Amino acid sequence: MSQTKLSEFDIIQRYFKRPVADVDLGIGDDAAVVSPTPDMQLVVSADTLVSGRHFFENADPYKLGYKSLAVNLSDMAAMGAKPRWVMLSLTLPENLNETHPVWLSQFASGFLDLARTYQVALIGGDTTGGALNICVQIMGEVREKRYLRRDGAKPGDDIWVSGYLGDAALALKHTLGIIRLSQSEMNHCMPALHTPKARVELGQHLVDLAHSAIDISDGLLADLGHILTCSTCAAEIKLDAVPCSRVMKQHMSSSLALECLLTGGDDYELCFTAPKNNNSVIEQISQVLRVPLSVIGEIKQGTGLSVIDAQGKEVIMQKKGYDHFAT
Amino acid sequence: MSQTKLSEFDIIQRYFKRPVADVDLGIGDDAAVVSPTPDMQLVVSADTLVSGRHFFENADPYKLGYKSLAVNLSDMAAMGAKPRWVMLSLTLPENLNETHPVWLSQFASGFLDLARTYQVALIGGDTTGGALNICVQIMGEVREKRYLRRDGAKPGDDIWVSGYLGDAALALKHTLGIIRLSQSEMNHCMPALHTPKARVELGQHLVDLAHSAIDISDGLLADLGHILTCSTCAAEIKLDAVPCSRVMKQHMSSSLALECLLTGGDDYELCFTAPKNNNSVIEQISQVLRVPLSVIGEIKQGTGLSVIDAQGKEVIMQKKGYDHFAT
Repeated sequence: MSQTKLSEFDIIQRYFKRPVADVDLGIGDDAAVVSPTPDMQLVVSADTLVSGRHFFENADPYKLGYKSLAVNLSDMAAMGAKPRWVMLSLTLPENLNETHPVWLSQFASGFLDLARTYQVALIGGDTTGGALNICVQIMGEVREKRYLRRDGAKPGDDIWVSGYLGDAALALKHTLGIIRLSQSEMNHCMPALHTPKARVELGQHLVDLAHSAIDISDGLLADLGHILTCSTCAAEIKLDAVPCSRVMKQHMSSSLALECLLTGGDDYELCFTAPKNNNSVIEQISQVLRVPLSVIGEIKQGTGLSVIDAQGKEVIMQKKGYDHFAT
Repeated sequence: MSQTKLSEFDIIQRYFKRPVADVDLGIGDDAAVVSPTPDMQLVVSADTLVSGRHFFENADPYKLGYKSLAVNLSDMAAMGAKPRWVMLSLTLPENLNETHPVWLSQFASGFLDLARTYQVALIGGDTTGGALNICVQIMGEVREKRYLRRDGAKPGDDIWVSGYLGDAALALKHTLGIIRLSQSEMNHCMPALHTPKARVELGQHLVDLAHSAIDISDGLLADLGHILTCSTCAAEIKLDAVPCSRVMKQHMSSSLALECLLTGGDDYELCFTAPKNNNSVIEQISQVLRVPLSVIGEIKQGTGLSVIDAQGKEVIMQKKGYDHFAT
């Protein structure tokens, strides 16, 4: 392991500059130049990961690189967009740069391996010194006006969720020593926390089928709540219908597990609403993509979000979801 | 001044969400949607400002918001691109959020006032908690292949610089107590440091005239050095020809001032190279835009960058320019 301090240019050249297709001018100039596809619209979002808030200081750098891109791909999924180009702005503390070039190399590998999977080109960004901060900005494309949005839910829509919720939050609670998972339970839950799958293909398939969509990053209740606020409607969801893994099922008697399921966040599954007459097509998509899709409730007129348990009683949650400024 | 803690959504709604033209879907969904102009290419860059490194913790928030966008506009200028859309990812420490909503309001005003000047739309970003970190990502447009790049300089090109160099660095050295400026000198130099002008119009005018261009953010020698490295050529510049203000002239006997002029950075002027037969057109542009433009030297065959003083002797500088990881 080298002890040599790397300059900003060394870092970019060594770890991040790889030949990429679909880019007219890549890393190394004042800006990158790319050619949008004719008649497509550009879909743009950004997500920042901060040490001590979104990940532990000693996080595995490969997985951290992977997750930094995954959470941004998830925003493209929630829009039904095809991800194309990505910018990475890294603020690195001295100690990472001075003594751990291996950290950078592994971080870059995690990021770029996932980028390759989705044929997303890393076209630029910035590298500077300071408290570890990973800011990723992603650009994708959709055909004109053919994107998923938060404000289109309609009373009568079924509410759908992809995959299983709460495993990432269980893994986090285990890491924090708040709950105790067995080794096999950890093996199941940790990938959900550290290397979440973005539902990119699913999002693109839903463009003509769903009335609204969001990715679950702050917890089901908070994110479905955004759909309701933007769409000016209410929802009722059935607790028993919320999809959960066998690990989550084993812990469901604990109120902490219930909190993980409904408000934990970091799921990066899609929550979407669609008219009931699209159900059979949506179920076909589930089979073709091999992504579990579950109806968890229905959009109603009015305001508010109710969770109903097996006995027909309303479940009251204290915490609605993750706030980046909560202490 | 309110003592209420603001959530991520409050912050965006109160300070950053303003109606903007040219945006199909703006702040408030998983991503923004915009329509690139047909037959134009997209030019994308990002720049991060970190507290304690790029600005002082107690920096005026209006000017900081202004500068955060200005340095990104400068990258668009260096590409000859028309800036269109911008993303702002803010990492805010608790104390700014809890006790200083006025900080946020002023920061947003500085950023958005400059955005309005250039008709750039703030379309999204992220807000999270942590050490103060301002990551801006900007998108502009150019006609196909009509952009300025670093790698096109040719032997025989004149080397040009816009405006005056070194005033921002003088202001910084004064603030750090390293040199002493009079009140009137400070009045002259401080705006160069805190509210630099990006040469956006100039960049667009140079697209068909300049062989290469860069914006001077890390200091003349470092940034011209990038042009030389990318273009595989050498340069000779005449110290006396490097444009400097009356304040800089008064301090030029000091080696510190010379350092500010050649290696100080934070100038956000353009350095470009152009064939000599474009000189008269470039001088006309200077007059029309009222931007001083000076020939400071010539591109040569070979490698290396020499600075020659009035006596024909080479000036040797110890420090070549700003490195974001230098201690």
